[in-house]
Amino acid sequence: MDSERLVELLNNVRQGRITVASAVARLRHMPFEDLGFAKVDHHRALRQGFPEVVLGLGKDIKHIAAIVGTLRRRKSSILVTRIEPEKMVKLKRLRTGLKFHPAARAATWTSAPIKIHGKGTILVVCAGTSDIPVAEEALVTAETMGNRIERLYDVGVAGIHRLLENRPKLESAAVLIVVAGMEGALPSVVAGLINKPVIAVPTSIGYGASFHGVTALLGMLNSCAAGVTVVNIDNGFGAGFAASLINRV
Amino acid sequence: MDSERLVELLNNVRQGRITVASAVARLRHMPFEDLGFAKVDHHRALRQGFPEVVLGLGKDIKHIAAIVGTLRRRKSSILVTRIEPEKMVKLKRLRTGLKFHPAARAATWTSAPIKIHGKGTILVVCAGTSDIPVAEEALVTAETMGNRIERLYDVGVAGIHRLLENRPKLESAAVLIVVAGMEGALPSVVAGLINKPVIAVPTSIGYGASFHGVTALLGMLNSCAAGVTVVNIDNGFGAGFAASLINRV
Amino acid sequence: MDSERLVELLNNVRQGRITVASAVARLRHMPFEDLGFAKVDHHRALRQGFPEVVLGLGKDIKHIAAIVGTLRRRKSSILVTRIEPEKMVKLKRLRTGLKFHPAARAATWTSAPIKIHGKGTILVVCAGTSDIPVAEEALVTAETMGNRIERLYDVGVAGIHRLLENRPKLESAAVLIVVAGMEGALPSVVAGLINKPVIAVPTSIGYGASFHGVTALLGMLNSCAAGVTVVNIDNGFGAGFAASLINRV
Amino acid sequence: MDSERLVELLNNVRQGRITVASAVARLRHMPFEDLGFAKVDHHRALRQGFPEVVLGLGKDIKHIAAIVGTLRRRKSSILVTRIEPEKMVKLKRLRTGLKFHPAARAATWTSAPIKIHGKGTILVVCAGTSDIPVAEEALVTAETMGNRIERLYDVGVAGIHRLLENRPKLESAAVLIVVAGMEGALPSVVAGLINKPVIAVPTSIGYGASFHGVTALLGMLNSCAAGVTVVNIDNGFGAGFAASLINRV
Amino acid sequence: MDSERLVELLNNVRQGRITVASAVARLRHMPFEDLGFAKVDHHRALRQGFPEVVLGLGKDIKHIAAIVGTLRRRKSSILVTRIEPEKMVKLKRLRTGLKFHPAARAATWTSAPIKIHGKGTILVVCAGTSDIPVAEEALVTAETMGNRIERLYDVGVAGIHRLLENRPKLESAAVLIVVAGMEGALPSVVAGLINKPVIAVPTSIGYGASFHGVTALLGMLNSCAAGVTVVNIDNGFGAGFAASLINRV
Amino acid sequence: MDSERLVELLNNVRQGRITVASAVARLRHMPFEDLGFAKVDHHRALRQGFPEVVLGLGKDIKHIAAIVGTLRRRKSSILVTRIEPEKMVKLKRLRTGLKFHPAARAATWTSAPIKIHGKGTILVVCAGTSDIPVAEEALVTAETMGNRIERLYDVGVAGIHRLLENRPKLESAAVLIVVAGMEGALPSVVAGLINKPVIAVPTSIGYGASFHGVTALLGMLNSCAAGVTVVNIDNGFGAGFAASLINRV
Amino acid sequence: MDSERLVELLNNVRQGRITVASAVARLRHMPFEDLGFAKVDHHRALRQGFPEVVLGLGKDIKHIAAIVGTLRRRKSSILVTRIEPEKMVKLKRLRTGLKFHPAARAATWTSAPIKIHGKGTILVVCAGTSDIPVAEEALVTAETMGNRIERLYDVGVAGIHRLLENRPKLESAAVLIVVAGMEGALPSVVAGLINKPVIAVPTSIGYGASFHGVTALLGMLNSCAAGVTVVNIDNGFGAGFAASLINRV
Amino acid sequence: MDSERLVELLNNVRQGRITVASAVARLRHMPFEDLGFAKVDHHRALRQGFPEVVLGLGKDIKHIAAIVGTLRRRKSSILVTRIEPEKMVKLKRLRTGLKFHPAARAATWTSAPIKIHGKGTILVVCAGTSDIPVAEEALVTAETMGNRIERLYDVGVAGIHRLLENRPKLESAAVLIVVAGMEGALPSVVAGLINKPVIAVPTSIGYGASFHGVTALLGMLNSCAAGVTVVNIDNGFGAGFAASLINRV
Repeated sequence: MDSERLVELLNNVRQGRITVASAVARLRHMPFEDLGFAKVDHHRALRQGFPEVVLGLGKDIKHIAAIVGTLRRRKSSILVTRIEPEKMVKLKRLRTGLKFHPAARAATWTSAPIKIHGKGTILVVCAGTSDIPVAEEALVTAETMGNRIERLYDVGVAGIHRLLENRPKLESAAVLIVVAGMEGALPSVVAGLINKPVIAVPTSIGYGASFHGVTALLGMLNSCAAGVTVVNIDNGFGAGFAASLINRV
Repeated sequence: MDSERLVELLNNVRQGRITVASAVARLRHMPFEDLGFAKVDHHRALRQGFPEVVLGLGKDIKHIAAIVGTLRRRKSSILVTRIEPEKMVKLKRLRTGLKFHPAARAATWTSAPIKIHGKGTILVVCAGTSDIPVAEEALVTAETMGNRIERLYDVGVAGIHRLLENRPKLESAAVLIVVAGMEGALPSVVAGLINKPVIAVPTSIGYGASFHGVTALLGMLNSCAAGVTVVNIDNGFGAGFAASLINRV
Repeated sequence: MDSERLVELLNNVRQGRITVASAVARLRHMPFEDLGFAKVDHHRALRQGFPEVVLGLGKDIKHIAAIVGTLRRRKSSILVTRIEPEKMVKLKRLRTGLKFHPAARAATWTSAPIKIHGKGTILVVCAGTSDIPVAEEALVTAETMGNRIERLYDVGVAGIHRLLENRPKLESAAVLIVVAGMEGALPSVVAGLINKPVIAVPTSIGYGASFHGVTALLGMLNSCAAGVTVVNIDNGFGAGFAASLINRV
Repeated sequence: MDSERLVELLNNVRQGRITVASAVARLRHMPFEDLGFAKVDHHRALRQGFPEVVLGLGKDIKHIAAIVGTLRRRKSSILVTRIEPEKMVKLKRLRTGLKFHPAARAATWTSAPIKIHGKGTILVVCAGTSDIPVAEEALVTAETMGNRIERLYDVGVAGIHRLLENRPKLESAAVLIVVAGMEGALPSVVAGLINKPVIAVPTSIGYGASFHGVTALLGMLNSCAAGVTVVNIDNGFGAGFAASLINRV
Repeated sequence: MDSERLVELLNNVRQGRITVASAVARLRHMPFEDLGFAKVDHHRALRQGFPEVVLGLGKDIKHIAAIVGTLRRRKSSILVTRIEPEKMVKLKRLRTGLKFHPAARAATWTSAPIKIHGKGTILVVCAGTSDIPVAEEALVTAETMGNRIERLYDVGVAGIHRLLENRPKLESAAVLIVVAGMEGALPSVVAGLINKPVIAVPTSIGYGASFHGVTALLGMLNSCAAGVTVVNIDNGFGAGFAASLINRV
Repeated sequence: MDSERLVELLNNVRQGRITVASAVARLRHMPFEDLGFAKVDHHRALRQGFPEVVLGLGKDIKHIAAIVGTLRRRKSSILVTRIEPEKMVKLKRLRTGLKFHPAARAATWTSAPIKIHGKGTILVVCAGTSDIPVAEEALVTAETMGNRIERLYDVGVAGIHRLLENRPKLESAAVLIVVAGMEGALPSVVAGLINKPVIAVPTSIGYGASFHGVTALLGMLNSCAAGVTVVNIDNGFGAGFAASLINRV
Repeated sequence: MDSERLVELLNNVRQGRITVASAVARLRHMPFEDLGFAKVDHHRALRQGFPEVVLGLGKDIKHIAAIVGTLRRRKSSILVTRIEPEKMVKLKRLRTGLKFHPAARAATWTSAPIKIHGKGTILVVCAGTSDIPVAEEALVTAETMGNRIERLYDVGVAGIHRLLENRPKLESAAVLIVVAGMEGALPSVVAGLINKPVIAVPTSIGYGASFHGVTALLGMLNSCAAGVTVVNIDNGFGAGFAASLINRV
Repeated sequence: MDSERLVELLNNVRQGRITVASAVARLRHMPFEDLGFAKVDHHRALRQGFPEVVLGLGKDIKHIAAIVGTLRRRKSSILVTRIEPEKMVKLKRLRTGLKFHPAARAATWTSAPIKIHGKGTILVVCAGTSDIPVAEEALVTAETMGNRIERLYDVGVAGIHRLLENRPKLESAAVLIVVAGMEGALPSVVAGLINKPVIAVPTSIGYGASFHGVTALLGMLNSCAAGVTVVNIDNGFGAGFAASLINRV
């Protein structure tokens, strides 16, 4: 039983030990936990097959290994993001049971084979080879959250025919994540070709007036193609997560 | 038949009047229109129940009335956005057949009652009363595109209980559009409460360091709640359009 | 009695019509309003002598007059801010019972003489004569919220002796609100002279690289004098409100 | 004879009235005008068929008419840019002899039919109908400077097939001016299709995070397609001028 | 006696050695020090129990140790802030007598147990675990300045129930310091729940469009909840200092 | 006699009515005014031939006329800056005795013919005709402050020979004020030609990425020519004032 | 033969194995590759003597060596840009056959001596010695793309005579690339002296308010001299590429 | 003799070997060097006692030593700025004859004792101890350029009495350089106290919203005290140079 204090209060009401008016007054000052509101939060991940997410950036590997250990005992699936390359090497030696995704700078653990929850395929499109780590982070996130995934990489707008050749692939996806740095024009072109939700991910790839991804971000927010929504610079995880929610609507 | 030139070319091949090699060469220089690619674009709106969108801003009312006339003859549904109040008054006198939505600064025309294409309900949430015009633009867009819609207004984060009281409403929606100006914190709180796609719309409401919506935009892009994607400042139409695509996934 | 549904539920528990377990389950799904949480919000203003605040900016005068009428019937004290000069003229003719504060571009109504809740005096200091409207907005806010107030105006840092001459006045205040545009240096100098909380208010006064108050805002955030906190550009109301809270600690 | 003082000095040298050493000393202190350097500037326009450019913005129409009168007497060709619509109406009544280009907000006068100086065709491409005034300013500038010109309008990247259908037109141009607002992606796509110099012109078309053309400007500066160079926001004249110089290389 | 020159002057007046008029003239040119104004500054810290603050950042450890030594001899309490981790390790070896607060990257020394000067409790609230160093700096500052302190950590707005569960803790504080990075929404929610002064501290936690804390800073300045004032990014010390001043009003 | 309280105190000391120790204590709490410090400020303008400056911007003409009347009675010279054209027309009708300088948008009044205090000539150089109002404001300021002045206008860097022709004029000046909008390059070129102090004044002339003078301001701050110092955008008055101070060193 | 599928389809049409209508339908769904559109892209470099460009930045030297090996086997000419100095040392040891250009931080390989395709000379002008690496990148690019090149270095605007002495060199060029950091004024002066296309390249040279090249970039975009177009900060390659296209118009 | 070509030309004129008309034509195409214009530049430093300035930043010590050697042979005085500490250590070992100024991160060499050229004293004022390196760079520059110098350090506006105590020192200076980071308020206060030219130098000292000196820079540009001019962030050298020019007016 999740809330002894609440049950006790109601038993007291039942047995006439306290009046209804006094119970109303006490209920108002009871913490939310007792009312069970907090429960929803703790359980939502497990119910819906969402992994617990651990941001690897800035954490030392022992700390990461400890968190992973705890979560494994709880049988939560796990997604560790932003693991710097040299840290990944060391983490591998710690026998955490994690599966590594070097291109995504990520690692995962699942208690059982991932079950598909998503209705269609999530397609991750990216402009240049430097954008791949962010694209892969989106992809691993979407996959761990139970979606069919596909890739379409290196189809930047300066060579538009490469994109057009892959129109069938674009059209068969249910949700698209489009990753681009520099001027960030790819999501506009993609969204103009299909009638599916497009999540645009600006990357920090570029130099000078790219301002570490700000130019790509602004370009995507001003997309002339309706249906494009945007996440933060380099936020592959956020795009993968949002695409997963969309794929279950 | 959609492409006389292409048919003629193929007939010539069939009848041996030109060689295959020469047909290949000619095909490469034929405009795309002839190959039918352009068709998709012209027809997509009608096939999918999407309205034609006319941006009212900066257009004079005679121009708007003329466009509306043309589209009505084509039986396209129509959504006119950003009609300044004084222009709306004059436009009403022109007997265009448009239905006006003053709170959204928009007008619509549909050849038949709108058919529901969306799977669930699109809920539009907004923080303050000044954000309502943008929220209503999103709402009218979603409605005209064939979705069930609902409103939850004036639930800013400084009075969090008003939002929490409406948790059932939040949970019953399939897609949420969350509109807020100033610090733009509402989408984070909403996305933390539910497991549905949230489209955040920053508004230009505020003063001083709100920088005409930039602060709200940045806040939403940095949301600590996964699953939030963002559109341009005051872009209610874009949010309504994206939500409609999501609601058909 | 504020919540019929809650009382009914508890009566049912008392009379054994529903089990405790079932009551727990129902309580979890009851809206917050029923639990009385929302009450706090509605009553807090009255209990603490805070006025209801109406932002005049952008509202038409009939709308303002209507709100004021409603609040007067509830016996709430009222503070209307940011009333443009020409609107104030018209509003005066409407016989709303409001008391006008032209220098502050504000108006107030109180059901009874304002009672002093604040412990000490709130001193409003300002740099130049152009900053006075913002300073007065802070002052009227603090006064309406039940504080003793004082003014020290036109003491910019380019004529430092005018400030130094008024050291006794600075030292006798409990809380200081320091209003300045341009380079926004005044709060640093004031905070260096006394040991009291200083709320800095940047104004949009200036031109060119003052960027409508951004320079003053940044200067204040970087104050070399500890103890300075900052509000948004031109936010006299916010400073007056925060000073009132501080004056009751 | 353009410089009496210089001729006089040299005559004095010739006739032995002053020594060479003293002539050297005097030459060093003579103003440049006397040495004829300034001449180049005055004559360059006439020699090369460049028009004199008058910025109409902010000038009153009598002032514009007077300048035009002076230049006509000198037989200079004239290009007046940025004439606000209501001013153009009044200017027409003044019988200045100017030819008006309303779509470009410009007017021109040439003493003789324009002679073609440019080698190839300058093609002006633009993304949306709102970008046309800037595109037309570029076009009128290029035309008045003696170039064959062509238009390709309303070919934004969200409907990429419209651009691709016009590939032959793109390929037959010698220099391209590509005008776009919002995310400013069009120049990248165009430059990826052809091997000709592309001058990108960002426009102030957009809202919110378009920041009056800054987003388009940044996008163009970060173009992933090599060969793109950029001019200031809305600077159709500058693009037309640069394209004309390129077309004579 | 603090000013020999002044005493000598007045003795001369008393004994008739100089006239009153001449004394007036001399007084005007005497440096302030002689008039004792400067005294206030030197003594204020000791009188009010404020520590001397040493910014550790960028100073070498020998320099820090020397300053600490001097201050200890004067019996001043000491607060050293922003000590990088590796420097703290070395500083510990120097036997300075400092007490270290690793989570706050700070160290303190007091000549006697800290006496409580503040009226109520200062509560430090923070959004995420990465914000803790800034929160702890605020806390150590407030504690060293003689205040009762409490912590409420990891209560970000994306899991709003964790904050709501702790409402009694929020309500029992006299002053609140709310620390948050990313979108910086926490102070608005907290200030909406209670009627106490809230000092908001943006942190540089985040990536991409968080711009090293600028987004959180802007969000806090635009808080929709009245009563929030703001300090510079990562300025835990400034918040702790201001809260201490407020707690003595 | 300027300070009765101080004289009274000293008389009391002289006559033995109060002790020296008690006089020291009282002196410390006397306001600065009594000690005569403030006098310096009131008199400095008159002693040094500086005019009183009235910022016309945003003041109504009756207010300006009243200030001018007061100052004339005090025999202060007067400089009124930033008078909008339509206001100047009305101000002329008020018979204030002011002398108007329409090109500078300024007006002046002096009790006697201006006496020359400056050592050399202040030369005001400007790039384009649109920069003239700012240049003239600098010029009128310098003239009213007692300097010999000269103009060198319309010598922008795109026609460098016009500047070079005027080298003797540049070299004969003691101080130079260089006014430019757009890219703000003129001060660098001028400072490279001469060895005199150059005050650079950016103007808000330009469009698009000139950002209302920010580009010119930044250009001037980054001047590759040593000896250039900079004032705020459009701050002709500040430049004229600083040049006047420099011209008396 | 480039497209077996297309030939096969047309043969089937010819031989009556499929109807024309069915061929039209199939053609619409064929990938672009089959239609030969993609060919253009693959071949354009070889046909026009353009090198393949490899961005060295961030790639490890083995990866670079491998790419170079592949391209050499295809007989493509190669341009490797942005090779950090220490990487260049190591790359030299790998015997890739590359020719190194240390001043440009670049390396090239060509299968045969470079043939001149450009009509005139491309002159690279630069302001200061720190700008040379960017200037040399532009130069090596232009040279490898088949142009006659010349240098004019260290001619900043603060010593304008050095530029003016070289007017003949400026006038004899067909296209000019002007490289400058700090205030970026050089392109304006150069473009004012000649009637040729000028490509301006801002560099990140400077400090403080140069903002890593942003000031130079803005200055160049606001050039008061018509005919200047601009590329991204430090983008020597882009300028060299654009100049090469211009030099073939 | 400085120009053989010019002398030869004039001799030919004298001896009738070429006509005056032809001499005029040739003069127009002669490089400036021949006309002696360039001379001024080469000699100006020596004539006026200005040192040659070598920017140490980014140069290796052998390069610096070589330049110093060359200049010493020419008997030029030398100022090397921005020498990183570790480089200074190594440079000292090279026996260049330089005199080192570690606090200024600078080194100097003069062929003879510095002669005083400046009229009055240049006073360098600075706000905090972290600003000292920039202040010292200004000071060493001014000293090497032949000025009497004085220091007034650690007089920030948060302890205003320290500044006021030093009023006589402020008043006895001819030119003031005021160095400050954070909010950059010191120049306004100083300029309000005296009637001398004030050059404000913002420093990059600060954190968070100080934006590496931008806040201080903006504050100084918006100074409410007339007579303040500003140089780039951390530009102690530029301030020292400008002050030297001013001190010779």
